[in-house]
Amino acid sequence: MKAVVFDDKLKLDKNYPKPLPKKGEALIRVTLAGICNTDFEITKGYMGYKGILGHEAVGVVEEVNSDDKSLLGKRVVAEISYGCGDKDCPWCAVKNYRHCPNRRTLGIWKKDGCFAEYFTMPINVLFEVPDNVPDEQAVFVEPLAAALEITEQLHIKPFEKVMVLGDGKLGLITALALRAQNLDVVLIGKHQNKLGIAQNQGVKTKLLSELKDDEQFDVVVEATGSLSGFETSLAHVRPRGVLVLKSTIAASKELNLAPIVINEITVLGSRCGQFPPALRMLESGAIDLKPMISATYDIDDALEAFERNKDKDSIKVLIKV
Amino acid sequence: MKAVVFDDKLKLDKNYPKPLPKKGEALIRVTLAGICNTDFEITKGYMGYKGILGHEAVGVVEEVNSDDKSLLGKRVVAEISYGCGDKDCPWCAVKNYRHCPNRRTLGIWKKDGCFAEYFTMPINVLFEVPDNVPDEQAVFVEPLAAALEITEQLHIKPFEKVMVLGDGKLGLITALALRAQNLDVVLIGKHQNKLGIAQNQGVKTKLLSELKDDEQFDVVVEATGSLSGFETSLAHVRPRGVLVLKSTIAASKELNLAPIVINEITVLGSRCGQFPPALRMLESGAIDLKPMISATYDIDDALEAFERNKDKDSIKVLIKV
Repeated sequence: MKAVVFDDKLKLDKNYPKPLPKKGEALIRVTLAGICNTDFEITKGYMGYKGILGHEAVGVVEEVNSDDKSLLGKRVVAEISYGCGDKDCPWCAVKNYRHCPNRRTLGIWKKDGCFAEYFTMPINVLFEVPDNVPDEQAVFVEPLAAALEITEQLHIKPFEKVMVLGDGKLGLITALALRAQNLDVVLIGKHQNKLGIAQNQGVKTKLLSELKDDEQFDVVVEATGSLSGFETSLAHVRPRGVLVLKSTIAASKELNLAPIVINEITVLGSRCGQFPPALRMLESGAIDLKPMISATYDIDDALEAFERNKDKDSIKVLIKV
Repeated sequence: MKAVVFDDKLKLDKNYPKPLPKKGEALIRVTLAGICNTDFEITKGYMGYKGILGHEAVGVVEEVNSDDKSLLGKRVVAEISYGCGDKDCPWCAVKNYRHCPNRRTLGIWKKDGCFAEYFTMPINVLFEVPDNVPDEQAVFVEPLAAALEITEQLHIKPFEKVMVLGDGKLGLITALALRAQNLDVVLIGKHQNKLGIAQNQGVKTKLLSELKDDEQFDVVVEATGSLSGFETSLAHVRPRGVLVLKSTIAASKELNLAPIVINEITVLGSRCGQFPPALRMLESGAIDLKPMISATYDIDDALEAFERNKDKDSIKVLIKV
């Protein structure tokens, strides 16, 4: 089968072996997949991963290696991590597979990804896509679930003021998802065209240059992935407020953590989320993520799609299989 | 009066003007004061503070500039920050003066400190010391309140495992204070003699060299104030656990914040605390802080006391007035 493989370099392999579903797994034929910044990071060495890339996809179940055939022929999406399944694993016991110490993660850690004609995943992390949610929305379920993870971890009260910093994919989806939960959100970014996507759906937006030094928020979501974004976020959280860290940052220069202590800030790391709330939000039509699609490439042109993803003006780049 | 003043350099001034209590303030005659690492940091430029040093003291109220004379002649301790008192200040309204944006802080920010024969503070931040608490215990009320601030901010459940990293003043008091609240605490440090002080009062202790790489805790309190301590703490918090940051840290080398996101860690900044719970704990006799006293100097020898405080073997150095 065709597959986008990273193995020291990124390549399109046209004869990659089609995977066989193990016991408890399904074989999914991919229809549409999305490129995430993590994929790009992996091509620069992140996680030391080698194999088929990709962890955002929608597809159709073609085979099930289990007595439970209920998903056969259904259109599905897959949560990206699955656990060891050991009866003594406290994380697997509560289906919080993303913290199982022996987890595998689609296209990121010990499991071939979904930029291919087929991939396999355990059926307990597959979710059927509602009929009224087209592939072009369903393909966003993974980053949307990551945005909704914030409200799984943190009780944001209806009167609290939330700032989302960064108008890339993650910032846009986060601002839209929080607004769709009736929260008081302002999205801050550097690109009027990107901010416009959120603005068109009722999110307040502001250019970073317009943010006043003394503006303070109860909750700030850092979604730039940059050290300067972290510092800006810290400067705009009120004393005893919460800074939600959504993207992995490494401080390569001096970083002063003292404001965290002086202002008793809570820095909350936040990663992937559960799919059912994300699918529910897409099904309700409360948000429209299609305007984020910058381009769609055939899998034969996947390398070109990766190039396009690097483009500063690109938001989401999809791969059609 | 005699006063220990920092003004580019540390000096003992024998003719510093005795302060006059403003409206709402009391004049306190100092009997015993404690040197904190923050005092030492100030002598290296921290906060840009100049004036009388010191924020840990016990003393006797000699004058009150207020109709309320109830504290006159009483032995008291003073919370170190007081607010603007403006009726529209949300922090002052809940007596959380330490986050008032216009606060003043004893010996740290815009208010002369207590390493002197006298100091003044508003009567609403003064607390009477119970008769059964001697000066040698009462002088610890400020750092003890800072340790108890952790349980004001965070609900640590009785079954959760807590690690306190660092066997200096802050780490020792924190471990003792958490243990006295019946929590499951282990104190980790590098000095068997310091660990022994906590061990003698029922705290489990372990040398850092004995800490296994895979030991994980629900809550880790970073009390070393060093970047390596922060990294060690991060490595030993379980996924979704809490790292309490008690001391101000600046990363001068590369610092990777990615584990916070990947393991969804909460980093909780924690500073000063309220005095009543600390006085209650001292009154109950649940902890004995006297074994932490390394030396007591007369105020005439205050500069010597500061030198002794730098000594690696010193824990708490006191100044008798």
